[in-house]
Amino acid sequence: MLGFHLLRSSISSSNLFSNFSAKTHLFSLLSISRLSNTNPRLQMECYSTSSETSRILIRQLFEKDSSTYTYLLADVAHPEKPALLIDPVDKTVDRDLSLVKELGLKLIYAINTHCHADHVTGTGLIKGRVPGVKSIISKESRAKADLFVEHGDKIYFGDLYLEVRATPGHTLGCVTYVTGDGSGHPQPRMAFTGDALLIHGCGRTDFQGGSSSQLYHSIHSQIFTLPNDTLVYPCHDYKGFTVSTVREEKQYNPRLTKDEETFKKIMENLNLPYPKLIDKAVPANLVCGLQEPIGNAA
Amino acid sequence: MLGFHLLRSSISSSNLFSNFSAKTHLFSLLSISRLSNTNPRLQMECYSTSSETSRILIRQLFEKDSSTYTYLLADVAHPEKPALLIDPVDKTVDRDLSLVKELGLKLIYAINTHCHADHVTGTGLIKGRVPGVKSIISKESRAKADLFVEHGDKIYFGDLYLEVRATPGHTLGCVTYVTGDGSGHPQPRMAFTGDALLIHGCGRTDFQGGSSSQLYHSIHSQIFTLPNDTLVYPCHDYKGFTVSTVREEKQYNPRLTKDEETFKKIMENLNLPYPKLIDKAVPANLVCGLQEPIGNAA
Repeated sequence: MLGFHLLRSSISSSNLFSNFSAKTHLFSLLSISRLSNTNPRLQMECYSTSSETSRILIRQLFEKDSSTYTYLLADVAHPEKPALLIDPVDKTVDRDLSLVKELGLKLIYAINTHCHADHVTGTGLIKGRVPGVKSIISKESRAKADLFVEHGDKIYFGDLYLEVRATPGHTLGCVTYVTGDGSGHPQPRMAFTGDALLIHGCGRTDFQGGSSSQLYHSIHSQIFTLPNDTLVYPCHDYKGFTVSTVREEKQYNPRLTKDEETFKKIMENLNLPYPKLIDKAVPANLVCGLQEPIGNAA
Repeated sequence: MLGFHLLRSSISSSNLFSNFSAKTHLFSLLSISRLSNTNPRLQMECYSTSSETSRILIRQLFEKDSSTYTYLLADVAHPEKPALLIDPVDKTVDRDLSLVKELGLKLIYAINTHCHADHVTGTGLIKGRVPGVKSIISKESRAKADLFVEHGDKIYFGDLYLEVRATPGHTLGCVTYVTGDGSGHPQPRMAFTGDALLIHGCGRTDFQGGSSSQLYHSIHSQIFTLPNDTLVYPCHDYKGFTVSTVREEKQYNPRLTKDEETFKKIMENLNLPYPKLIDKAVPANLVCGLQEPIGNAA
């Protein structure tokens, strides 16, 4: 766990910097430089795939076969431009790493929202290609990784961070990563919801420790409590949508707008086919996408 | 041409509002309200799919079969939230109109960057479904539409506008739509490049009046002269990229970084197959995507 640039602290803390001396696991890999950000936050409702500050870079990338979105995030105001990838896919690792290189970023983390059943993660391949990259997944996923996160943790990249919110229900180990709300963080906030909350949908709950009741409560307590203009970036979309907002999902999600009992019935009656890749993907994803993990992924 | 909320004026004008009394075709469909925007522009390089102001809404939408991106733009600070769709696809009209409705937008324009050969435009269907929507395409496309634009025109939606830049070469009538640079407009600017400039690629030049020499000059003179951080939003991507920037394309586009002679040779030797849908799509797209145009599309 050495070199772990991740902060375990309470989500409810309003001042992230006051936490630097508070808890364990803080070994800053990168020097800290902080730019004064005097950009006033407009009070207007936005909806756009945007941030008012220029500190963060975000790139959404799509893998067509599994309809998976991978997200590249970086603190481009930091001298080292530290970056992370959320939910990389094995097939598109070349594309993703090429983009990282072109943008002059320093990739430090390859992160999964959960142990996927529909595609093989690119995490292990990335670790084999970019020395120093650490894989991250939730402790509850029971998958292998360099670093394990729990509800309330903060994953720092430069002066920005992602807050970890446990959102189990699709799988037992599902988490949502949410951008911070401190100075320099993007406004509106962005929630990378994995397969918990999809755009006008949600992940299925019939395997891998799934529970419709748990998913209902996860989304309502951990995602729908975020500000209405929070941008929802899911792990998949099958209709060509790229982003939604908490407001839109609270208003229009055909499953989550129902009461819990109705939601549970909907989820019990989806009659979805057995996932094509599950028998290959899950065993592989339990070890960073590789049957034989490279380096310290084991 | 009545009710044409579009301004024909010089691109080089630095003050867009001074043009309101200058030229023809100005019939404001919507009342004007202007918010004071004191949001300072950060000088930092950004790269992100973002704007610092919250006035604009942008949603990128994907049609998987033809790998086409449709863009929904709106001025959400305007009381009527006037919106436009760039390059809608016939297959995804339901999806797009449903989103427009959910967001409470007033769709006023359905716009094409050119007469497409690989998919059928949704413009005609949209006009049949949403009364009052006007179709727009370039005059040089020789396609039918309610309104025809030329290089230098501005297409207003609320207090925002798109500037029209002629970028022929893929077809004779290709244009690039660029967000304005006045107060309240998004920073960085956004260029909707159609099939002229693609991410690390460009449109083919072997049919529909295409010319590799013309395309080379169009991109260099009309797109690469935009600020480096301008976001490039193309009509297609086949590798899962969603956005690029002028800087990245100037630096890394494998075709456009070459000199003109090399570029022409590359384009002459692509040996691409005859587009599957061209014999259906082009005749349809010449009449808004419908063999029998609805309403005043004829």
